[in-house]
Amino acid sequence: MAFHETIQQFPSLQKSSSFFDPSTVIAICVFFTLLCVCIIIGHLVEENRWANESITALLLGLCAGVVVLLLSKSISTSILVFNEDLFFLYLLPPIIFNAGFQVKKKQFFKNFTTILMFGVFGTVISFCLISLCAFYLIKKIGVTNLDTKDYLAIGAILSATDSVCTLQVLSQDETPFLYSVVFGEGVVNDATSIVLFNAVQSLDFSNVDGLTALKLVGTFLYLFITSTLLGVVAGLLSAFIIKTLYFGRHSTDREVAIMIIMAYLSYMIAELINLSGILTIFFCGIVMSHYTWHNVTESSRRTTKHGFATLSFIAETFIFLYVGMDALDIDKWKSSHASAGTSIAVSSTLFGLVLLGRAAFVFPLANIKNLVGKREGTKIKFRQQFIMWWAGLMRGAITVALSYHQFSGSNTSSEAALMITSTLIVVVLSTLVFGSITKPLIEVVMPRQLKSLNSDVTDNQSLEDLRILLLENGDSIDDQDNNNGNNNQQPRRASSLRLLISNPTTTVHYLWRKFDDKFMRPVFGGRGFVPYVPGSPTGEADADADADEAS
Amino acid sequence: MAFHETIQQFPSLQKSSSFFDPSTVIAICVFFTLLCVCIIIGHLVEENRWANESITALLLGLCAGVVVLLLSKSISTSILVFNEDLFFLYLLPPIIFNAGFQVKKKQFFKNFTTILMFGVFGTVISFCLISLCAFYLIKKIGVTNLDTKDYLAIGAILSATDSVCTLQVLSQDETPFLYSVVFGEGVVNDATSIVLFNAVQSLDFSNVDGLTALKLVGTFLYLFITSTLLGVVAGLLSAFIIKTLYFGRHSTDREVAIMIIMAYLSYMIAELINLSGILTIFFCGIVMSHYTWHNVTESSRRTTKHGFATLSFIAETFIFLYVGMDALDIDKWKSSHASAGTSIAVSSTLFGLVLLGRAAFVFPLANIKNLVGKREGTKIKFRQQFIMWWAGLMRGAITVALSYHQFSGSNTSSEAALMITSTLIVVVLSTLVFGSITKPLIEVVMPRQLKSLNSDVTDNQSLEDLRILLLENGDSIDDQDNNNGNNNQQPRRASSLRLLISNPTTTVHYLWRKFDDKFMRPVFGGRGFVPYVPGSPTGEADADADADEAS
Repeated sequence: MAFHETIQQFPSLQKSSSFFDPSTVIAICVFFTLLCVCIIIGHLVEENRWANESITALLLGLCAGVVVLLLSKSISTSILVFNEDLFFLYLLPPIIFNAGFQVKKKQFFKNFTTILMFGVFGTVISFCLISLCAFYLIKKIGVTNLDTKDYLAIGAILSATDSVCTLQVLSQDETPFLYSVVFGEGVVNDATSIVLFNAVQSLDFSNVDGLTALKLVGTFLYLFITSTLLGVVAGLLSAFIIKTLYFGRHSTDREVAIMIIMAYLSYMIAELINLSGILTIFFCGIVMSHYTWHNVTESSRRTTKHGFATLSFIAETFIFLYVGMDALDIDKWKSSHASAGTSIAVSSTLFGLVLLGRAAFVFPLANIKNLVGKREGTKIKFRQQFIMWWAGLMRGAITVALSYHQFSGSNTSSEAALMITSTLIVVVLSTLVFGSITKPLIEVVMPRQLKSLNSDVTDNQSLEDLRILLLENGDSIDDQDNNNGNNNQQPRRASSLRLLISNPTTTVHYLWRKFDDKFMRPVFGGRGFVPYVPGSPTGEADADADADEAS
Repeated sequence: MAFHETIQQFPSLQKSSSFFDPSTVIAICVFFTLLCVCIIIGHLVEENRWANESITALLLGLCAGVVVLLLSKSISTSILVFNEDLFFLYLLPPIIFNAGFQVKKKQFFKNFTTILMFGVFGTVISFCLISLCAFYLIKKIGVTNLDTKDYLAIGAILSATDSVCTLQVLSQDETPFLYSVVFGEGVVNDATSIVLFNAVQSLDFSNVDGLTALKLVGTFLYLFITSTLLGVVAGLLSAFIIKTLYFGRHSTDREVAIMIIMAYLSYMIAELINLSGILTIFFCGIVMSHYTWHNVTESSRRTTKHGFATLSFIAETFIFLYVGMDALDIDKWKSSHASAGTSIAVSSTLFGLVLLGRAAFVFPLANIKNLVGKREGTKIKFRQQFIMWWAGLMRGAITVALSYHQFSGSNTSSEAALMITSTLIVVVLSTLVFGSITKPLIEVVMPRQLKSLNSDVTDNQSLEDLRILLLENGDSIDDQDNNNGNNNQQPRRASSLRLLISNPTTTVHYLWRKFDDKFMRPVFGGRGFVPYVPGSPTGEADADADADEAS
């Protein structure tokens, strides 16, 4: 008490004892307190199949937004404003890197063509459909001040699925095929939407000709290939440095530090030379988990595996909290000048377009794939198509970030503000509705016996065929290839070319494995080329979890 | 090539595809590339006793500064400007937290009175001396425009030792006593300097009376006690939450996340209510390593132990790189308008005052402690005093940050710019000189046989005495207490009061252990109250390192 009175007599001394802007400190305190609460609630509702961390964070963000609004008596507060820089510089990279680092590489590459097809063509289809429909429907509602560019931007904005939330509703272990396709598509989709969005931003609509589309395709291919290459090079470089210098000799900290720094550096360099940082850091994560991770000490392996997951987890929770709080930024609502009716009409139109836009490519593309692919085990059943459609309906932080980029800043019309609030409503609604229903829905649509019916088994057997064929030139192949029917008693010195045609992915995977073992791993390290391998970041997770449970 | 040409035709599309300010991206790329280089060089010079990571980073920062200067043709570049917010919000907290988390608690608390004495009284003595001498000497050089407040600020600025660099030149395992005293003093010293600095900032010099000093003392005690308490409460809360809810059941990520977030939150809350965030997060780290760390799963233990160390390591390297680059900010040099002679005179005066200011309290206080302390084993030898003086001479990022706070912004006189450049010279020089010479010096001054002559053994035996006395009321104590000489054949049912007086620290430690086992650990968890304990973050580091080497 005495001390406290002393302090009271020293108001000026107390006021200046912090070096920061008080509002920054308050904002950080509020956010971190909410993060703590989110984590605790997320833990408590873990076994509840309707809820997950994203929904908790979003709802908590909304509640906090209400409280802040009431406390600040409807005066705008900077705490609520979504900051693009914070999102793209600090929150997105750890999430995407960790996704690449923990993804089951075999599943991912096995479904690579499917992922690319959905992620690229699907997103383009969705973009065209949403832009076109928005152009006609939103004008009918009475919003007339938007130009062609804005409608195209809306198409790109609403085509970006939320891969973060997908990670939480789909299980990598229970539904590996769906997980790898929907999540992989999500990453490619993010990159595609951002490229489309940027293309729209810079297109000159006074001079559109047939070449424009071709140029767009060229740009996209250039971005995709160079971004991927950059990520691969960064990953390989880190593997080579750590293998050659053997950092673990002196300090495990340096190993972990160089992995973090090189991954982040790859993202920033990609952004610097105008490539897609998301693709770069994703592939950097994949390469690091395949090579670098096996070159470090056991301590560093554990640290990176759990440390990266934790960073990604914090960033994810933070984003949803942020989006939730941001939805209640009173300034935007005030400046939209829209009646509740208009607002609801626009939001529900956009919401409907999201459903439609995704349906317009998931079902057609899946059926095209079923027609082209000959083997029974790889066909995508209608139930799976439905889940693929449904699980990709959530819209998240990328949508919010792109929407701010398009409709704030220079563009301060009431229509622009209306578009921001409508996008926010779509994001919040889709996360709450689809996020909470997806898990129970999967349980209904895909009973447990169906889940285990993956193409893993078939493919492993095909791989076995190939090994026998290519490596041992054996004659004793039994019919795993269902499409060959009964004509498999003939002598079987099949050429690798024929196999490559009938089983392209598996063959490529097999040839890659041979190349990897012969040329890559001796230089860059990797499983089997370091003395002691206790479980990859993706592999023996269960054994590790068991060890955790036991301790 | 074809793609590249396509891109060339699309300049506007390419330009806008990044969402950030290009200068931010460039700055981040440069810093992270330099960090990579630092880590690699630091690894290569690990066995060189003259160099360490701080010096490498500082030199590399200087070189990079030169390159940036040449490239930008002496135009001021924002990349070089030291940012207080970045330092105090993001770089300092992980370093101090990790210091608390990894500190050997037993050593730290055993030397707690010494640490407090050096950290508080020592800093005050240094502050008074440096202020007073600077007041007379700098005026003589010809710098006349500074007022009393500035001189007092210089005293506080130059009294802040650099605990980061100390961590690198002293070894916790080789010289535990010196390490714990010098480093512990460093943490308390940081807090004291910042409190003194803030007090100076807000003092009204038109109205100084006898009460002012008393008020300062009151403020300091209030800050010290409440900050410590806040850190302890935050640590205990995290231990309680993790123990009660058992996060590890579902996810190890949540455990690690909640530890990081609560630690950071404690720092921010301390800053919010104008306490010393440094002290708070330091004690939070200590409590977390004592309780919380034992409540989490084995995976989380490894992850936190190495993860926090890595974060701290990156932040440290970053700071030195930053200070190195910042030293070449051409704007400051231009605006100081000082001749080389004046600049050198002021810098060397300040440098000399740093040496003098530290000597003025290390030797007297150490000898006072030797006079008061009765037991032979706890006396601080002259060699140790010398190392204590020497190892605390480095000035670092806190000095830079405080100097910017005082002499930039509103105060744009050429004298103020001169003070910033002079402080920077002192920081760079002291880090290079003392940083590189300390390790070899310790080897010369303290040969290996002397290093192991620590009071550990004696104290462990004293603790054993106490256990026998207090717990078992035994009669069989042999003479560990050298001051009692030969009169120890008498019956020894010494009262705990007498022991408390003769061995205050040990007794307090013993009583604390009893209290801890009976009341604290059952509630908050900790070693022995969780099923499986594989080595604390401070304890079995060697066993862990062995495991790393083997893998």
